[in-house]
Amino acid sequence: MMTFWTQYQPTKVIFGAGETDNIGKHLSEAGYKQVLLIADPFMVQSGAAQRLVDHSDGIIVGVFDKVDPNPTVQNVDAAIKKIQEFKVDAVIGFGGGSVLDCSKAASAGYASQLTAEKLVTGSKITAAMPLICIPTTAGTGSEVTPVAIISWKEKDIKYPLSSPLLYAAIAIDDPRLVYSAPKRVIATPGVDVITHCLDALTSVKHTPISDRHALNGAKIAFDNLEKAVNDQDKKALDNMMLASLIAGLAFSQTGTTGSHACSYYLTSKYRVVHGEATAFTEDEWFRVNSKARPELNQMVQTIGFKDAEAVAVRLNEVKKNIGLRTTLEEINVPLSDLDTVAERTIQANNYINNIIQLNKEEIKQLLLKKSASSAAQS
Amino acid sequence: MMTFWTQYQPTKVIFGAGETDNIGKHLSEAGYKQVLLIADPFMVQSGAAQRLVDHSDGIIVGVFDKVDPNPTVQNVDAAIKKIQEFKVDAVIGFGGGSVLDCSKAASAGYASQLTAEKLVTGSKITAAMPLICIPTTAGTGSEVTPVAIISWKEKDIKYPLSSPLLYAAIAIDDPRLVYSAPKRVIATPGVDVITHCLDALTSVKHTPISDRHALNGAKIAFDNLEKAVNDQDKKALDNMMLASLIAGLAFSQTGTTGSHACSYYLTSKYRVVHGEATAFTEDEWFRVNSKARPELNQMVQTIGFKDAEAVAVRLNEVKKNIGLRTTLEEINVPLSDLDTVAERTIQANNYINNIIQLNKEEIKQLLLKKSASSAAQS
Repeated sequence: MMTFWTQYQPTKVIFGAGETDNIGKHLSEAGYKQVLLIADPFMVQSGAAQRLVDHSDGIIVGVFDKVDPNPTVQNVDAAIKKIQEFKVDAVIGFGGGSVLDCSKAASAGYASQLTAEKLVTGSKITAAMPLICIPTTAGTGSEVTPVAIISWKEKDIKYPLSSPLLYAAIAIDDPRLVYSAPKRVIATPGVDVITHCLDALTSVKHTPISDRHALNGAKIAFDNLEKAVNDQDKKALDNMMLASLIAGLAFSQTGTTGSHACSYYLTSKYRVVHGEATAFTEDEWFRVNSKARPELNQMVQTIGFKDAEAVAVRLNEVKKNIGLRTTLEEINVPLSDLDTVAERTIQANNYINNIIQLNKEEIKQLLLKKSASSAAQS
Repeated sequence: MMTFWTQYQPTKVIFGAGETDNIGKHLSEAGYKQVLLIADPFMVQSGAAQRLVDHSDGIIVGVFDKVDPNPTVQNVDAAIKKIQEFKVDAVIGFGGGSVLDCSKAASAGYASQLTAEKLVTGSKITAAMPLICIPTTAGTGSEVTPVAIISWKEKDIKYPLSSPLLYAAIAIDDPRLVYSAPKRVIATPGVDVITHCLDALTSVKHTPISDRHALNGAKIAFDNLEKAVNDQDKKALDNMMLASLIAGLAFSQTGTTGSHACSYYLTSKYRVVHGEATAFTEDEWFRVNSKARPELNQMVQTIGFKDAEAVAVRLNEVKKNIGLRTTLEEINVPLSDLDTVAERTIQANNYINNIIQLNKEEIKQLLLKKSASSAAQS
């Protein structure tokens, strides 16, 4: 018997409130001389991007902010062009998951001499520029994962690039960046932290190390998310940034599973924001998956839950407490479309990670539990 | 306020019983063509080194086994010479902590063009060859740390080399390698796993991530060490290899602290083996340190201990149950030499990591608790 597991996470993480004000020091210590900043347009408007430039000791030589919420091949190609134009030796991604993913794809596309279309149609990543990821939401975890999801909307392709070369060289987790975020920008990435952790626990690729990160991240998120959203409490926001990082350390090794596979169509067709969409079915996936991995019932006791069922119940409670929708009716998905939701779930690349492989009919049954009448009973 | 912490551990870990039989696949996947094996002499005698060579698909082109228990500058220089002689592109370290440390130093010395004497007198490491670390004891954790301790015996120097470049590219943790180890070779590295974890919890450099690894590693080691030593139970030995790895992930970030600082003189003067020497005072260090970090009393509750005191009591119990000595009289240290033990503790490089800085007199008082008369009372 030769079953084995691996652990690889080469990103240097720097964690601290206010730490982005030391960006110049961190860039020069890493030996970067000219760097392109790829920023969320909102971070440019708010002045946060300029503050980063001002603290870069002149090392940030250009800013690019043409990144859409689900980044496109056009976004990536435009970013690659900016890398060429400014002749930089490293790239900073500064934003939520979309901006970090676009930055990863651009740094790989540039160094591998591949267009974005080539990347999303499967051409092999052979190199990547050094990348510094600075998340401005507490939830993505993308700063420590080797994955970037890029959309080719004209062809209805949403492709998860994956390569060890996509790991950022440096991640800077600065909770101060989320202190003044609107509640909704705390809530949806925040609940995604929990789905990252529960997905990691129910992946066929789980390891003894990813399991502990996932339990730890879930515990911190369950303890802090409501306070972070509803009171915008700084300590709770610090903890959510930490939970987001730890969740990333977990699912960087395991990939995501059912809840994520099931979410993409809810986002593309019904415009449910990513975190709300993954959390929407996560409680049901965790219930089903814990039957396939019964030790989860004991494992969650180490973070204060009676069993896996108690985790599912608590997640649903948290969603309601932070203003997220929990029924199919609320997110406007008609029962007549559940067939397609189930089909798209099975087609998603990460569904094979899910510890139990439900068929289409079984996924439909799972989704039906999210109708208002079922939800009222549970 | 700009306090921050970092996390960096770039080694790819491969964990699995029997996995060293796939060494050829792992070496070729990493792109290595000619590799030198630096092996523990005992692994050469036992045939384990030859088995590794046989499974390397011809990639291991040379074997070097002149490594002493506390590796010397002469050992390192001889290993560097072998690297030159065989013109290899990577090095495997295959043994306990001593062999892994020697391999790290040789790979750095060769690539930085520095002799071992230069290395241990502080010349900067600027490069290192790719290194594969395969521990043959469940305890060192050195396969995932950036440190190598090398001795220059003629000058009474025992120097901890430290550089991010000393991280192995690949670590292969194969529990099968310890299945037939003698009890003592399970016991002393095994108890060192616990000291690595407790040291990490009481380091000024502890982080939220190292803390969880340390608690997790300690829990697994406390649950499995006695069974691993006394029954040589395979499942318990698998778990000890896992605990050793996790402890390494913790103290790779924090360094070691009081128990280790206090151990070196016990080893050099009184020939107390490393793990027995670090564990000898660890319970007392943990008692003292938990007063400086009182939250440890709550933290250890998450792994089933009432408080820090209960951890110290349990550690002492484990030591006795696996046949280790627990009093100054047993290890033949006269009370008249405690002054020197205390002095050497303070001089050790890692003592500054300890969360509370005891003075010489206070360390002597701590040591006195290890006299037979005190130990009987506690």
